[in-house]
Amino acid sequence: MACFKNSHRLNHASPPRPEAEVLTVGNELLTGSVLNTNAKYLGRELTKLGFQVTAQSACPDEIPSIRRALSLAVKRSRVIIVSGGLGPTPDDLTRESLAGFFGVPLVFSKTQYREIARHYRKRSRPVPSIVKREAYFPAGAKPVLNPFGIALGFIIEKSEKIIVVVPGVPGELVRIFESRIRPYLRKRFPALRPFASLLVKTVGLSEPAIMDRLGRDFFKLGRFQFGIYPSVGEVSLRIYADSSEVIRRLKARVFKTLRNSTYSFHEETIQEAIAKILMKRGWTLSVAESCTGGQIAERITRIPGSSRYFQGGVVAYRDKVKTKILGAPAGILKSRGAVSKEAVAFMAKGIRNQLKSTLGVAVTGIAGPGGGSASKPVGLVYISIASPQKTKVWKERFTGDREQVQDRAAKKALEHLWRWLRK
Amino acid sequence: MACFKNSHRLNHASPPRPEAEVLTVGNELLTGSVLNTNAKYLGRELTKLGFQVTAQSACPDEIPSIRRALSLAVKRSRVIIVSGGLGPTPDDLTRESLAGFFGVPLVFSKTQYREIARHYRKRSRPVPSIVKREAYFPAGAKPVLNPFGIALGFIIEKSEKIIVVVPGVPGELVRIFESRIRPYLRKRFPALRPFASLLVKTVGLSEPAIMDRLGRDFFKLGRFQFGIYPSVGEVSLRIYADSSEVIRRLKARVFKTLRNSTYSFHEETIQEAIAKILMKRGWTLSVAESCTGGQIAERITRIPGSSRYFQGGVVAYRDKVKTKILGAPAGILKSRGAVSKEAVAFMAKGIRNQLKSTLGVAVTGIAGPGGGSASKPVGLVYISIASPQKTKVWKERFTGDREQVQDRAAKKALEHLWRWLRK
Repeated sequence: MACFKNSHRLNHASPPRPEAEVLTVGNELLTGSVLNTNAKYLGRELTKLGFQVTAQSACPDEIPSIRRALSLAVKRSRVIIVSGGLGPTPDDLTRESLAGFFGVPLVFSKTQYREIARHYRKRSRPVPSIVKREAYFPAGAKPVLNPFGIALGFIIEKSEKIIVVVPGVPGELVRIFESRIRPYLRKRFPALRPFASLLVKTVGLSEPAIMDRLGRDFFKLGRFQFGIYPSVGEVSLRIYADSSEVIRRLKARVFKTLRNSTYSFHEETIQEAIAKILMKRGWTLSVAESCTGGQIAERITRIPGSSRYFQGGVVAYRDKVKTKILGAPAGILKSRGAVSKEAVAFMAKGIRNQLKSTLGVAVTGIAGPGGGSASKPVGLVYISIASPQKTKVWKERFTGDREQVQDRAAKKALEHLWRWLRK
Repeated sequence: MACFKNSHRLNHASPPRPEAEVLTVGNELLTGSVLNTNAKYLGRELTKLGFQVTAQSACPDEIPSIRRALSLAVKRSRVIIVSGGLGPTPDDLTRESLAGFFGVPLVFSKTQYREIARHYRKRSRPVPSIVKREAYFPAGAKPVLNPFGIALGFIIEKSEKIIVVVPGVPGELVRIFESRIRPYLRKRFPALRPFASLLVKTVGLSEPAIMDRLGRDFFKLGRFQFGIYPSVGEVSLRIYADSSEVIRRLKARVFKTLRNSTYSFHEETIQEAIAKILMKRGWTLSVAESCTGGQIAERITRIPGSSRYFQGGVVAYRDKVKTKILGAPAGILKSRGAVSKEAVAFMAKGIRNQLKSTLGVAVTGIAGPGGGSASKPVGLVYISIASPQKTKVWKERFTGDREQVQDRAAKKALEHLWRWLRK
């Protein structure tokens, strides 16, 4: 995902918020073998709780490195979340590093070991001796049971600092954070008010166009932290403020200036926004895709319950499919080309008729890198929507490589469909 | 992507490698609004060049924070790559922080400003006054022209330390790194030998099963750094060593123990491995998908040139599609159910016949969360491959939520197809 930073800092006239930071442990992060999704998740969750996240760091699986990172973190922040390095192999050294840092021995948790035994019993496998390590925690820490996996987490509170240590397996981390760590932090910081926040999901406008429409006045509406994040074919705004009154004012202004491009104020995709309208109206949908190769169908069928409004689709990659299944006249494909406004209209009408759906959506185009010509260059895409009343066609030109053209075409088709439905 | 850390550290008997680290600047990273893809990219590229990456950190857009992070970094590492905070808005403070840190003024690059002007001319727009800032760099630094965007990068060399500062827009970062920074680092560290490396992409085996097959002996074959990374339906091994002789030995052992599950020793997906075999044989393929909703078609059509072997597909979401387009007998769908070995075989044969392809692949199943029953629970999936000679069906049971079942079913269908083709 392409993203561009442009965020205005929250001005701290309001009472300062406790500082928190995230320390992720693992060689695989430093060598760039995996994406650090844990740091993103923890940053987002801590911010939502109302902490000011001031640092993020990753360090290798080595006791001196982990201890050095910890000693920096406790100097900077009130709350430190450490994830990773709790596995069973000898290179998993986070628990030893923490024990060493605080000068305490490791002690055994019988309760966690019972969880581990239960985990293996469910899979009808004996407990490997190697995993016994994962039931240890530094003496004096508060153990955090992990019913979602093997490794025990723990919390250390010392001289006003709080160090939370959780496993790095992303699925386990999320479940432990939600069920144990978030409730603990809320209880531990009862006065902490979450930021008031505003999410705006727009489609069809560029980042500069949005900044233009918001205008300079927007930033005089109060004190807030502003982030603008473009991804393929859409731009999200994420705003945090101490005052919900400021958020109310900002939302009203957004509503006024970006109304025709805002598909949601919630954490949802445009296909989810589309699904809601389709269900409300009791309409059904089918798709015929050429250059997007199944992407539109895939995005729609990701949604639970999509079988209520989605009939199915055709990936019409070769002309044979367009004529045979969609009934596009071979003559038209020959005279106007498979990438033409005539062809795309036949595809939309064809899939709609074949599958007896309220709407038919079709896309045809040249994703590249090959297949372009002077009159039909790479990036040329036609989109069509057919309804019982009419069939409409849009001609688009996208830039970028194959993957970008495919993504932009799929997103643009969904944008047209959303605009069609909200009328 | 789920990932699990399990990496064994490289033992440094060989000459120590220069230490490098990555500092990413931006509030959006700390609040978890965007994934830090830049840190992963830079970590991977520095490792490939032969550096030992020892730290990664993210800090907010504030001069004191950036300066503090810099002062830590120059103490730890020989090479520091800083990315982000070079934009045009007042909260982009990386260049001011660097200039302050080294106690030098900012100076103007006329050459970069000409690049900026050219950028806007190409888009027939006037140069906004705000972007002039982006042509400044700290006096004494070596400017790094950016023909891919607006912001100038720069390199500071001081007391044996090297600080490389590049824009944070991911597309620009990659292009500047490849065209300017990598060549510069190679020239600056002529004695630096890249690690010898081995990538193994396997399918159909779990992480513990792979560790079992490799055995303890594997880790006695020499000194190397070992990472094992499971993602949906597949597991990759990534190994770095100083000696290519060690890599040769490891590869021979992998070949012996994991042969039937290794689809590639290169950076490629299983659908790319499949594509190569199809093209070599001159075979074609079509797909009929129910619960995977277009995912298999989408993955195949991501590959440039896929129209050479991919005929097209059908997303048979409702039974209507299965009978009408694929010719599956309505009676069978009724008596055996749409999720049955009979139905999936008809789908594979049907799409193969309809589109006249060498092979037809079909998937039907219950992705959930709804739609399951005692005899046909959520996660039950049938996969079929039809060829001119025969039609084969596999019954699978997947765990997880809707998205996981869909991903696992799509990957498993590709796995069966790969195994079928390599025979």
